Amino acid sequence: MADLTLPALRWAEPPEGPVLVLLDQTRLPAQEVELVCTDVPGLVGAIRSLAVRGAPVLGLAGAYGVALAAARGYDVEEAARQLAGARPTAVNLGYGVRRAREAYLAAGGGAAGAAAALAEARALHREDAEAGERLAEFGHELLAELMPGGGFRLLTHCNTGSLVSGGGGTAFAVVRAAHRAGELRRLWVGETRPLLQGARLTAYEAAREGMPYAVLADGAAGSLFAAGEVDAVLIGADRIAADGSVANKVGSYPLAVLARHHDVPFVVVAPVTTVDPEAADGSAIPVEQRPGREVTEVRPGVQVAPVGAQAYNPAFDVTPPELVTAIVTDLGVVSPVDRGNLADVCSRSRSTKS
Amino acid sequence: MADLTLPALRWAEPPEGPVLVLLDQTRLPAQEVELVCTDVPGLVGAIRSLAVRGAPVLGLAGAYGVALAAARGYDVEEAARQLAGARPTAVNLGYGVRRAREAYLAAGGGAAGAAAALAEARALHREDAEAGERLAEFGHELLAELMPGGGFRLLTHCNTGSLVSGGGGTAFAVVRAAHRAGELRRLWVGETRPLLQGARLTAYEAAREGMPYAVLADGAAGSLFAAGEVDAVLIGADRIAADGSVANKVGSYPLAVLARHHDVPFVVVAPVTTVDPEAADGSAIPVEQRPGREVTEVRPGVQVAPVGAQAYNPAFDVTPPELVTAIVTDLGVVSPVDRGNLADVCSRSRSTKS
Repeated sequence: MADLTLPALRWAEPPEGPVLVLLDQTRLPAQEVELVCTDVPGLVGAIRSLAVRGAPVLGLAGAYGVALAAARGYDVEEAARQLAGARPTAVNLGYGVRRAREAYLAAGGGAAGAAAALAEARALHREDAEAGERLAEFGHELLAELMPGGGFRLLTHCNTGSLVSGGGGTAFAVVRAAHRAGELRRLWVGETRPLLQGARLTAYEAAREGMPYAVLADGAAGSLFAAGEVDAVLIGADRIAADGSVANKVGSYPLAVLARHHDVPFVVVAPVTTVDPEAADGSAIPVEQRPGREVTEVRPGVQVAPVGAQAYNPAFDVTPPELVTAIVTDLGVVSPVDRGNLADVCSRSRSTKS
Repeated sequence: MADLTLPALRWAEPPEGPVLVLLDQTRLPAQEVELVCTDVPGLVGAIRSLAVRGAPVLGLAGAYGVALAAARGYDVEEAARQLAGARPTAVNLGYGVRRAREAYLAAGGGAAGAAAALAEARALHREDAEAGERLAEFGHELLAELMPGGGFRLLTHCNTGSLVSGGGGTAFAVVRAAHRAGELRRLWVGETRPLLQGARLTAYEAAREGMPYAVLADGAAGSLFAAGEVDAVLIGADRIAADGSVANKVGSYPLAVLARHHDVPFVVVAPVTTVDPEAADGSAIPVEQRPGREVTEVRPGVQVAPVGAQAYNPAFDVTPPELVTAIVTDLGVVSPVDRGNLADVCSRSRSTKS
């Protein structure tokens, strides 16, 4: 089958010097526009505006960003600081920055350090793609266990496909595996207000894959549950605390509560790099508050609320472990979700896998 | 205090003949534009496009529509049929049509019938305004009982103010009463995708009243509940079945499930004309399915999902009685919500009130 995954970001070395090229996700699906970053302030701007977004790919952006600063001779420490602070919730961003920075320092900085940082970013990129394959495999096995016989009707939120990772993605990678096995009856795509990553990006990826899918207003999910039209919810994660609390795109927690009310499995799919052992529980996860205009406008410049309207706009919410049926990681499945099981799976080595 | 209510519709008699003038709610809050209906097909179009919407005011539109057909000499039976079928869920529409039609027939049709139909529409208009006052009074009393001390943080969905009735509205009338008594700490306004009646209309009415309010994406309500920022949910209703099941704007049911999960009162405010004794339970309420483009576009013509995207777009959802703390009607409060209590309150006469 043709590779339908989209490169969310790629390193390039034109004669003018190295650059990081991003697919501008704010312009999708209407336009496929590339954004060329030649320095870290440009990349930080792209991260803040969500031109590049999604937990795993933010780790790659952080690592390549450090490599870019090093290759162009900018202050690497300052670049690492700026990149790590660009957005607060996704733990992967700081992780990618840290790995590239440490490789740069270990090689003694300079040209050798720049080469080492780039090599580390590329290693992280490969690991991320491999993690995506294992997430798809473990997640697909879990679906078969939870719902023998296929014909899955899966509900997802936000965007977790190839746009968010170095490979096939997280929750969407599991959906894709089910679809390719002929087992996907329907993908329900929550539009994911305010920035509509579901309607814009997940629908775009689902359409490219030829999946049977339908978009819905986030508030319409309740009607689907009530009608018995959802067999499982699959979402990604931006940060997972040590107790298994899951920070993900705002609107995830209401789906977890609905899933519990209707006795439907609620499954989180994320690489172990998303787990933050430093965060003891959900209250330790910082939740980014974004500008109110994302809510009072339906698109940049298209105002809907009255002029002067206040808005409440958290970018993420936190789902407690007791509402999560399973966390599918690249090292195995955590279920039931608790501190001990999560620590066990995270401590597995890559070679032993499950 | 100045009257800040908005006339959603009014009867006028210019030299060219009688007309029904509507405030075009699809243009709010950016523009206050009146739509002049000279015949029933025009009015039916305005109802279907949601230029006029909200359960109680649909009853008025139906009654004045019959009066308009009669006054202009059109076929009243055909007009009544078209109006009653314009939208399926709100029971008030058929109720208003029926009352005006019966008055027309009782007066023997013709000019006398036209005068009788108009008088009946005006009577319904007055009753609706009076019902709004009683809803505000009973609802305000209920809030004080549920949460002594004031300082209410109330969450609402869709739009239930003076735009939806002949008077001050339903749920919003209760919020207004609390605000005018100095007891409203915050009104949380769910934006209400797909058509954004919360962000456009409720925010507009809240701003006119000078209320402390904030708009949120519908999916962000979960974060508010989790943070303990919601003292009660107040919504309206489009139809209430005999068992107390409540059909209301899509997205209401998820709020009911969240409210139950967090032990927060979930209160429905609606005149007894919204109760349909013919509908035995929620499954007997027809739910209007609206065009998918309302979801795949964020505003008419502003496409966000990929071209060709399918969408699931029910206009309403149904909340079962066990999730409803109370139904505030113009004849008293139904709580606990069950078939017997609802029938008891509906059988009260207007003169005895509570």
